[in-house]
This record gives sequence, C-alpha cells and structure tokens, in this order.
Amino acid sequence: MSSPTATLLISCPDQQGLVAKFANFIYANGGNIIHADQHTDFAAGLFLTRLEWQLTGFNLPREFIAPAFNAIAQPLNAKWELHFSDTVPRIAIWVSKQDHCLFDLIWRHRAKEFTAEIPLIISNHLQLQEVAEQFGIDYHHVSVNQNNKLEQEAKQLELLHQYKIDLVVLAKYMQILSADFIAKFPQVINIHHSFLPAFVGANPYHKAFERGVKIIGATAHYVTSDLDAGPIIEQDVVRVSHRDEVADLIRKGKDLERIVLARAVRSHLQNRVLVYGNRTVVFE
Amino acid sequence: MSSPTATLLISCPDQQGLVAKFANFIYANGGNIIHADQHTDFAAGLFLTRLEWQLTGFNLPREFIAPAFNAIAQPLNAKWELHFSDTVPRIAIWVSKQDHCLFDLIWRHRAKEFTAEIPLIISNHLQLQEVAEQFGIDYHHVSVNQNNKLEQEAKQLELLHQYKIDLVVLAKYMQILSADFIAKFPQVINIHHSFLPAFVGANPYHKAFERGVKIIGATAHYVTSDLDAGPIIEQDVVRVSHRDEVADLIRKGKDLERIVLARAVRSHLQNRVLVYGNRTVVFE
Amino acid sequence: MSSPTATLLISCPDQQGLVAKFANFIYANGGNIIHADQHTDFAAGLFLTRLEWQLTGFNLPREFIAPAFNAIAQPLNAKWELHFSDTVPRIAIWVSKQDHCLFDLIWRHRAKEFTAEIPLIISNHLQLQEVAEQFGIDYHHVSVNQNNKLEQEAKQLELLHQYKIDLVVLAKYMQILSADFIAKFPQVINIHHSFLPAFVGANPYHKAFERGVKIIGATAHYVTSDLDAGPIIEQDVVRVSHRDEVADLIRKGKDLERIVLARAVRSHLQNRVLVYGNRTVVFE
Amino acid sequence: MSSPTATLLISCPDQQGLVAKFANFIYANGGNIIHADQHTDFAAGLFLTRLEWQLTGFNLPREFIAPAFNAIAQPLNAKWELHFSDTVPRIAIWVSKQDHCLFDLIWRHRAKEFTAEIPLIISNHLQLQEVAEQFGIDYHHVSVNQNNKLEQEAKQLELLHQYKIDLVVLAKYMQILSADFIAKFPQVINIHHSFLPAFVGANPYHKAFERGVKIIGATAHYVTSDLDAGPIIEQDVVRVSHRDEVADLIRKGKDLERIVLARAVRSHLQNRVLVYGNRTVVFE
Repeated sequence: MSSPTATLLISCPDQQGLVAKFANFIYANGGNIIHADQHTDFAAGLFLTRLEWQLTGFNLPREFIAPAFNAIAQPLNAKWELHFSDTVPRIAIWVSKQDHCLFDLIWRHRAKEFTAEIPLIISNHLQLQEVAEQFGIDYHHVSVNQNNKLEQEAKQLELLHQYKIDLVVLAKYMQILSADFIAKFPQVINIHHSFLPAFVGANPYHKAFERGVKIIGATAHYVTSDLDAGPIIEQDVVRVSHRDEVADLIRKGKDLERIVLARAVRSHLQNRVLVYGNRTVVFE
Repeated sequence: MSSPTATLLISCPDQQGLVAKFANFIYANGGNIIHADQHTDFAAGLFLTRLEWQLTGFNLPREFIAPAFNAIAQPLNAKWELHFSDTVPRIAIWVSKQDHCLFDLIWRHRAKEFTAEIPLIISNHLQLQEVAEQFGIDYHHVSVNQNNKLEQEAKQLELLHQYKIDLVVLAKYMQILSADFIAKFPQVINIHHSFLPAFVGANPYHKAFERGVKIIGATAHYVTSDLDAGPIIEQDVVRVSHRDEVADLIRKGKDLERIVLARAVRSHLQNRVLVYGNRTVVFE
Repeated sequence: MSSPTATLLISCPDQQGLVAKFANFIYANGGNIIHADQHTDFAAGLFLTRLEWQLTGFNLPREFIAPAFNAIAQPLNAKWELHFSDTVPRIAIWVSKQDHCLFDLIWRHRAKEFTAEIPLIISNHLQLQEVAEQFGIDYHHVSVNQNNKLEQEAKQLELLHQYKIDLVVLAKYMQILSADFIAKFPQVINIHHSFLPAFVGANPYHKAFERGVKIIGATAHYVTSDLDAGPIIEQDVVRVSHRDEVADLIRKGKDLERIVLARAVRSHLQNRVLVYGNRTVVFE
Repeated sequence: MSSPTATLLISCPDQQGLVAKFANFIYANGGNIIHADQHTDFAAGLFLTRLEWQLTGFNLPREFIAPAFNAIAQPLNAKWELHFSDTVPRIAIWVSKQDHCLFDLIWRHRAKEFTAEIPLIISNHLQLQEVAEQFGIDYHHVSVNQNNKLEQEAKQLELLHQYKIDLVVLAKYMQILSADFIAKFPQVINIHHSFLPAFVGANPYHKAFERGVKIIGATAHYVTSDLDAGPIIEQDVVRVSHRDEVADLIRKGKDLERIVLARAVRSHLQNRVLVYGNRTVVFE
C-alpha cells in the first residue's frame, strides 16, 4: 500500500445505481479501490460514501480527476471532496494552560499515528511555550480578552494564513471563537470535557460532580457558531463513583480528552469524516 | 452467612472517632460485622457509612437496636436508617406499554437476584395485563390523563397502601408523578432512557439521534418533584454510530434500561444506597 | 423498505474492479442497493463484501439470481451465499438447566428484534419444559451422557431434520457436540461464558475468580470440532472487583451472555456474518 | 488534608471485632481516619483492610506506631504494612524500544498524578536514551541476552540498590526476569499487552488477530517467577473489528497499556493494593 491514494467523500440525494456509478468511474480509469464504504440516511434521503483508490496505475492524471468526477457529480446534485494522501495537511494546535492534549498530539505525531505537519502552536497564555520549544514548534502568544477578541482573532487568522494551516485543533483552548472567525476558517476541531449535550459551557466537571453522575465523558466536535453544538466526531466515557471528587473527575477526564481528541483528529486527517447537517458519518 | 443481618446506613457531620464509635457499638453487643464501608465527602463535611452485621449471636434484642443506636447517633447529629435482611420489601412495578423492563425484573426476581415480593403492577394501559396474569401478579389499570391526574394518584396511593408497598419501580411508566404524590410516597425509582442530564424529558432517543451523539445511555434515579433531576443511582452507556436509526437506538437502549434499572433496584433493596443532598453513595 | 430484499455475501481473491462488477450486476438488473459494505484483508489477499438490494423492481426473477450471479462469481473464484429476507429461518434453541438466555431469546423474538421461527427446544434436562409450554414451543428431552452421545446425537439430528431447522443456538447447553455432528449440521452458534480464548472449557467463572481478573467476558462463536475455538462473532465484557465472589461473577455474566448471544444471533439472521478461515467479518 | 498520613494495609484470619479493634487503635491515639475500607474473603476466611489517618494530632510518635500496632497484630496472626505519605517512593522505569508508556509515566509524574521520584531508567536498548536526557533522568543501558542474563541482572540489582529504588515499573521492557531476581527484588509491576490470561507470552496482538477476537485488552500485574501469571492489579479493554489489522491492534493497544499501567502504578503508590495469594484487593 505504498502507492499514494485518492479519496472521494460524496453525499447526494439517494437514487438507484450510485454505488455502480462511482465504482465504475474508478474502475474505468484503472484504479484499484482499497476502501469503499457507504451509508444511506433513509430519513434524510441521502446517500453518503467514501472511496479510496491507489493512484499508481490510475490512468487519469491527478489534475483531471476533479473535473472528470464533477461531470458525474453535477447531474446527481452531489457534494464532494477530493483528497490525496501525499498532500500532508498542516495543523495548528491551540492551547491554554493545560498540556495533556498537546503532549499527546505531539507524541502521536512522532509515533506516526497520523500524517500531518504541526508547525504552529497558538496560545492565550505563556505556560506551554517551553513545551513548544522542546519539540521545535513555533509558539505564538495571542492574549485574548473580552475587549480585544476581534482584533486578536484577526492576528490569529493572519497566523493561520502565514503558516498555511489546514486544520485548527483546539486542545483545551478554553476560549470561544466568534461566528465571524468560524465563517472565515471553518476547519476547527474542539475537545469538550463532557459528554455533550450534557454540561455545555464552562466547568463541566464541577457541574458533573454537582449532578452526581456515575459516568463522565468527553466529546470531540467541529466548531460552529453555536457553543458546543457542532457536529460530533467522537465521544467516550469513563465510570466514576461517589469517591471521585472534582479533582478526580478532572484527572480521569484528561485521559478521555486525550484519546477522544486524538481519534477525532486521526479520523479527520484520514478523510474519514463526512459532515452533513449537524451530523457526521465516520467511515471506519 | 445464613444468619439474618441488620444494616445501618448513617450520615453525620464528620469528626474524629466515628469509625471506632460505630464499630464498637456492634462489637460491644457481640455482633459480627460482615460488611463495613464508609466515605467522607470532604467538600460537604459529611461522614457516610454502611454497616451490616449478623443478628445471630447479637446480644441486643432486635427491638432495642434502634433506641440503643439512637443514643449514640443523636449527639452526633446523625441521620440513619436500620434495616433487617429478613424483612422482605414489597415492590409495585408501574408500567405503560413496553414490556422489557417488566419482564426483566420478573425474571431476575425468579432467579433470586434480589429478595422482594412483587404483588402489584399498576399501569395506565391494558397491554401488559396478560404478562401480569402469566406470572400471577395483580394488575391494576389506572388510566391517567391531564385532567384526572390528582384523583387517579389518590387511587394509586390507595393501592400502594392496600398492598403495603415499600418501593415503587417506574419500569418505563412514561408519566410524570406530581410533587404531592412524591411527598406522600417518596420511595420511587425511575429508569430514564438517556444519559442524564442529557436529554431530559420526552423522546430522548429522537433527540439523541438529532444531536448525532456517538454514545447513548440510561439512568436510574430516585424520583423527585423536579423532572429527571433526582439523585442518580446508576448509569450505563452503549456506543452507537451513524448506521443506527432511531429504531436502533430504541432497541439498543432497551438492553441498557433493563440492566441499569435492575442494578439500581438491587442496590436499593440491599440497602446499599445512601442519599444525601441530590447525590448518592452506592456502597459496593 | 417494505420490499423484500436479496443479500449476497461474497469472498474472493482481491483484484481490481470487484466493487464495480458486483454493483453493476445489481444495477444492470434494476436493483436498488440498500446496504453495501466491503472489506479487504490485505494479509490474506481476500476481498469480502455484503450487498443487499430490494427485490421489488428487480428485473431478474428470483430463481435466476443465483445462476446469473454464478456466471460472474466463478471466474473470480468467489465463494458466495444468497439469502432472501422473506425466507424466515427456523431456529432450534438447545438448553440445559439455566433459563436466562432462553427467556431472553424468546423475549427478543416476541419484540421482533429478529425475524425467525422458534419451533423447537432441545434439552438434556427437564427443568425448562415448563418455559417451553408457557410460550407454546415444542420441547424435546434428549438425555445425553458419555455412553449414549452418538445415538442421542442421531436423535437430535433427526429432530432438526423433522423441524426443518436452519440454525441451532446453544443457549447454555453445557455439552460438547461431536465433530461428526458438526460435520452434518454446521450452523451452530454457542455462547461461552468467558472472554475467549481465556478460560476455555468448563467452569470459566471459577477459573476467572481463581485468576483474580478485574474484567470478565462472554463470547458467541460458531461451533467447530475444536472446543471453544470456532470463529468468534461477538464478545463483550464487564468490570468486576475483589468484592465479587464466584456467585457474583455468574450473576454479572448472565447479563453478558444474554446480550452477546442475542447480538450474534441477530447478526447471523440478518446475514451480516461472513466466515473465512477461523475469522468473521460482521458487516454493520 | 495537608497533614501527612499513615496507612496500614492489614490481612488476617477473619474474626469478630476486627473493625473495632483497628479503629480503636487509631482513635485512642487521637488519629483522624480519612480513609477506611475493608473486605472479607469468605472463601479464604480472610479479613483485609486499609486504614489511613492524619499524623498531625496523632499522639503516638511516628517511630512507635509499628511496635505499638504489632502488639495488636501478633495475636491476630495479621500480616501488615505501614506507610507514611511523606516518604516519597523511588521508581526505576525499565524500557526496551517503545516510548509510549515511558512518556506517559513521565507526563503523569510532572502532572502530579502520583507522588514519587523517578531517578532511573534502565533499558536493554539505546533508543530511549534521548528521552531520558530530555527529562533529566539517568539512563543505564544494560544489554541482556540469553547468555549474560544472570550477570546483567546482578548489574541491574546493583543499580536498584545504588539508586535506592522502591519499585520497578516494566514499561514495555519485553524481557523475562529470572526467579532469582524476583526473589531479591519483588516489587515489580509489569504491563502485559493482552487481556490476561488470554495470550500469555510473546506477540499477543498477533495472536489476538489470528484468533479473531472482537475485543483486546491490557493487564498490569505484579511480576512473579511464573510468566504473566502474577497478581493482577488492573485491566482494561477496547473493542476492535475485522477492519483492524495487527498494526491497528498495536496502536489501539498502546492507549490501553498507557492507561492500565498508570492506574496500577498510582494505586500501588497510594498503598491501595493489598496482595494475598495470587489475588489483589485494590481499595478505592
């Protein structure tokens, strides 16, 4: 499987023959499919699919794949994305003071659990600058408060532009991005430290303790202008008991946050996540 | 362990020597402790404990245990309950149209997973009368709507009184009890078909589908006048995916509901649940 | 989706164009695919797929589907099965003395969690005859011991033949079937009360207690002549602690056994399980 | 809770009055118990308990606690350990080539998830020397093979002595320690990359793949002279599917290994693990 691959993520109104049409497009051009999965949302009347095939031996030159597929997609009213596995996406990790998700993403990157470049860390605090230096990643301190949010977001956008960032990962950034920011840069994954939609907003572990829940969770989701309400990519949970104080929930939650965020980022980077409406299909 | 046992559930302001005081009370009277567990809620400044000992060989006659212990408890401002294992509690199961929790509780009762009598089923529908007859349990149909709720609750209370019921289990009863009812009969366990506090109220599986969650849950709790907000006894979850339609969530949820409700009822009947504030300690 | 469907389960040596070939076969005949999933086992060089499509509107009469598809499959060296959703499979449930899996399967059958007929229960004991009568299922007592196993297996096979049974479910049957029996009737699902391959053979809960494990499991698998070593369909686990005695492991295990067996039977009946080598693909 | 604490871990033949006796010892000397838990193994006839109390205000000087308690313990045939929370244990982490458990333990140590010093890393390879230097920990390369095992173990023991090590954590060390080594230094925790007792020995993920399991696990246990058969401290599992190749099992397993090992080390360092026979009580 050392050949680079192309991946199509497609959603379109359901109709007969879609599997055949899409598979034929690849087969007719000499492509070898290595992953194909589809899902029909009968309630929404939508067909959703992911197709990945090897570029070695594929007769259509890379730059013609999009226009050629568009000719098929347009009559079907299909929305689609095309990705190439050898185009390495560039990630900016945004942090606040906590280091566990940052460390974890850096370790997984080193362990080659996902393919990406991490050239940039942005933070509203100075605490993790040392970690960035330790691993040779640029660290930009952009201090945000209620009064300067819009101008600081302009700086942040400028940094994303300058570093050619494809994906922002909010690794416990603890700040809300404006609707305007999201409109300008929509590819943002956040880790929220609760089992959404329980405990939206600040201090979810304190709220969980107050409520006396027996299980806590974490949720990775795409950020939208609606707080903690964007499409969910991944969730996981861990059992707690009356013996767990807030500090224990926070400690146990960190393990969840690390794993849930890492799974979501990996799925996204492998182009396995298809968003439609406020839902996701995560192709396995 | 064939000896009957006594169990004390105690909560009191934390202070030095409580473990020794309570243990001495039992030891001094010749009791053999077979279970002792305690928990300190440092935030609330509360000491909470469960003590179970064998009555065989205990020198204090059964009827004197409460007054004798009260002499110890009062100076400590302790709240406490005393239970005897050979006093078999009587349960009323309340149902609507779904049979899975009812069948499950009946099966577990037959399998001796908990000790209780189940002499009464109350329902606002007729569908499960046949099941009640099959297992020889009295079935009372009390049809409740928005207009007749108070008078029907009077009938229900009369039935609970008549059958000497100790515990009401809402096994998918799908109706809200009035604050007045709860004040008069507070020992009520409900199974809610979501991971509370997510999806309070009606149709949680539909809401879970709409939100696109990746995990669903079920919650067993004591009923209070505040909808789905009473002290949580037990929760559990199961993973779902984009392939699961609402009908699948309902089907998967049934397995959760059965198990979570059964665990909560069993813990309650074994006097392992201590409620304080809106929280529970479930001693294992 | 009220139309009956046809389902193909196919495995063949991997090569280019398989997705297109199979999808075209259905599309060319006017079929509407409602489920398609595939998997490539790169280590084994095998392509495995499940295709389900609506028969309403499919131009090929039902009796010609198999020969028509065979013409495609043979050059590919494909192994395949064809199933129709309106052909209701017939199950025999085999039990010993424990009733939890039997009750559970009967309840799920009544709740329409799977489509099948359950005309026959076979047991080496008399205990569950009453349950069979309660639900109107024929009960045959075939007493098996080390001396009469072969002749009793002949009787059992005769019963399966007489009742036109498609699938045997060993719902805690607690006896080993001979290799000869399996050769003659290979469609047998067993529930083993451990997380295989841990604790093969008798008394797994006792062995689990001895070993001091912190988690116990259950495993549903197809039966082969090799004890507890057949292809695994489903497994699940539950956490235990030092407080759990063997009786607690057995009690907690029952919940696992019920759920794991039910999931496996449902997946099998929906033709979602493809066996190759000693492994399964369970298409979701 | 800033006062240092003392912790007693006690096991003795069960008899009446033990809870009272032990609690009185602490109360009589003015101690404030902040954690007390006990368990009776009825099958073994053993009473096992953990008691932790604040040293501030305790009237017995620290050096007299052991002899004073011994006077109580001896007539009861009790085995016991006494620990002080301000005696910081010293850990040696042993690694081979994989860094995930090492990184994880170092991160948790920095995050103060447990109290210990980590002055020493021992490895049979050179790969992780750089990590050791990055975090300022001494790294000793002791190359072990079948021929030099005994003399190298002598060197390792010498290092443990020299660094005053209390606990060895085998963080994917991938070598078997001799019975002689264990006899000389018995405080060793290992992480085994399977759900023991399934897949004892080498290459458990390959074996798990071959067997086609639907769940994989990890196990932290004390090392004994019997390979992978020592007392289990903690286990956890994660679901896998036919889509997971061996490399995926290894990747998913790493997350398990990190978490399971960390939980076990933390429980051990908090003196919450009581070993008896080949079993553990992990007091929560």
